[in-house]
Amino acid sequence: MAQIIDGKVIAQKIHEETAKEAAILKEKHNLQPGLVVVLIGEDPASQVYVNMKEKKSKELGFHSEKIVLDKNATMDEVLKLIDKLNKDPKVHGILVQSPPPPQIDEDKVIEAIDHRKDVDCFHAVNVGKMLIGKTDGFYPCTPYGIMKLLEYSNVNPSGKHAVIIGRSNIVGKPMMSLLVQKAKGADATVTVCHSRTKNMKEYTLQGDIIIAAIGKPEFLKADMVKKGAVVIDVGINRVEDKSAKTGYKLVGDVAFEEVSAKASLITPVPGGVGPMTIAMLMQNTVKACKIQNGIKF
Amino acid sequence: MAQIIDGKVIAQKIHEETAKEAAILKEKHNLQPGLVVVLIGEDPASQVYVNMKEKKSKELGFHSEKIVLDKNATMDEVLKLIDKLNKDPKVHGILVQSPPPPQIDEDKVIEAIDHRKDVDCFHAVNVGKMLIGKTDGFYPCTPYGIMKLLEYSNVNPSGKHAVIIGRSNIVGKPMMSLLVQKAKGADATVTVCHSRTKNMKEYTLQGDIIIAAIGKPEFLKADMVKKGAVVIDVGINRVEDKSAKTGYKLVGDVAFEEVSAKASLITPVPGGVGPMTIAMLMQNTVKACKIQNGIKF
Repeated sequence: MAQIIDGKVIAQKIHEETAKEAAILKEKHNLQPGLVVVLIGEDPASQVYVNMKEKKSKELGFHSEKIVLDKNATMDEVLKLIDKLNKDPKVHGILVQSPPPPQIDEDKVIEAIDHRKDVDCFHAVNVGKMLIGKTDGFYPCTPYGIMKLLEYSNVNPSGKHAVIIGRSNIVGKPMMSLLVQKAKGADATVTVCHSRTKNMKEYTLQGDIIIAAIGKPEFLKADMVKKGAVVIDVGINRVEDKSAKTGYKLVGDVAFEEVSAKASLITPVPGGVGPMTIAMLMQNTVKACKIQNGIKF
Repeated sequence: MAQIIDGKVIAQKIHEETAKEAAILKEKHNLQPGLVVVLIGEDPASQVYVNMKEKKSKELGFHSEKIVLDKNATMDEVLKLIDKLNKDPKVHGILVQSPPPPQIDEDKVIEAIDHRKDVDCFHAVNVGKMLIGKTDGFYPCTPYGIMKLLEYSNVNPSGKHAVIIGRSNIVGKPMMSLLVQKAKGADATVTVCHSRTKNMKEYTLQGDIIIAAIGKPEFLKADMVKKGAVVIDVGINRVEDKSAKTGYKLVGDVAFEEVSAKASLITPVPGGVGPMTIAMLMQNTVKACKIQNGIKF
């Protein structure tokens, strides 16, 4: 039976480090990492995420702001706000909760954010720096969190075959970029599979590390996994469950029960990758604060 | 026996298209694509490359400038020149020949170039756009040239397994980024191997398309290649050859003779990938001219 990689425990350790770093910034430099989360409209799921981020950043001793714009906010209003936040020295990280309402051009909003404050790593400059292998930008929070899950679980990807299922801009593509780098904690041979891949199983069976991020409930079955593989499940899918009060349950992209019987290590859903995303956002905010104040990071 | 992919012939076709586009820009918009190649110092190989680029861009009807700075040029002088070129509306593409002398910080020079004039695609913004899948930046000339070689040879990577050997910033990493995109002419399942890969042969034997860019003479042998594979050789290595007047000969990263017996299509060295690099540089310059003048590309 696979050992569980407990994302909540690892995220907690990272939050403790972050809080320590924030305390040192306060003490030594009289600085407070500042994170602003912008929510446009009233999407309930977005509200939950935004509130979690606001709460956590306060707990860690950050300057934290939540700005809620009306669901009918215009592009011009959003860009004016971004411009104000770009210029505000108290604000080191700016995050506009995705997805915005349809009248808002998300790409333009991202481009408008000063890339040194782009703690989500959606800006092309930061994506490019990541691929090139530069360390003075940011990494997207979910794949960065997965790198940390591996590190804290003593899984060294060097020379191993990492098979990534999915090629999204928020997981698959940055994941391949991070794992393939000539760098400590990376150096994997990387394969990226996706919807157009034929005979998916041929590839996944080779994976020493499998990262499932394809957005299909319980897609990765036991017969697709090599004995002893490390399995990271990025999926969060709602499936009908009449026995549940809500009428649904959350499952990942991995058929957890059966794959657990073959894997050496596996992340659960929820409680695996999820908690890491917010932990890395907080780390990125501390890094942003340091970069913007010329402090070694 | 494999069919040869003739890079010279395909590059020539692309140059003809480029010349046509330049003529249309002249006729319809009174615009002339402008390319400036900057050479710092007297490196003989760099001089050859720079002269080729200057000559070709003139042939295609571009505004073409070669600027040679003294080998002792300071960072300040280089940055002042870049700033002038950034502001010059006649100049749409700026290329600083690599490698510059040691007193010049190449990264800083690249960052200083207006990313809309970065026709080499070395700037993080353009690298990021490529990975994200945006089409309003540039692609690095060598991997972009390989995409065109495949296209002109009627090789559709969709659903095929592309195995890339090498993870450099100028070939391996952009190559994986282009091939993995959800896009026409891409959509491959992609594996990236490199110096830390164990059992390289296990991976290369799976490749429907193999791209060798590891910088080791005749690294890819016949026993590493599946029958019928498409083999692209990016290597240019000098090896001793006493029978040659120069005392050396050029070989690729592929053992051409023996691999030819198994591959379905193969690029020679020289005359394969090489001529495409300059063809795509010229295409990028036309695109830069269009973007900077608000013309649909």
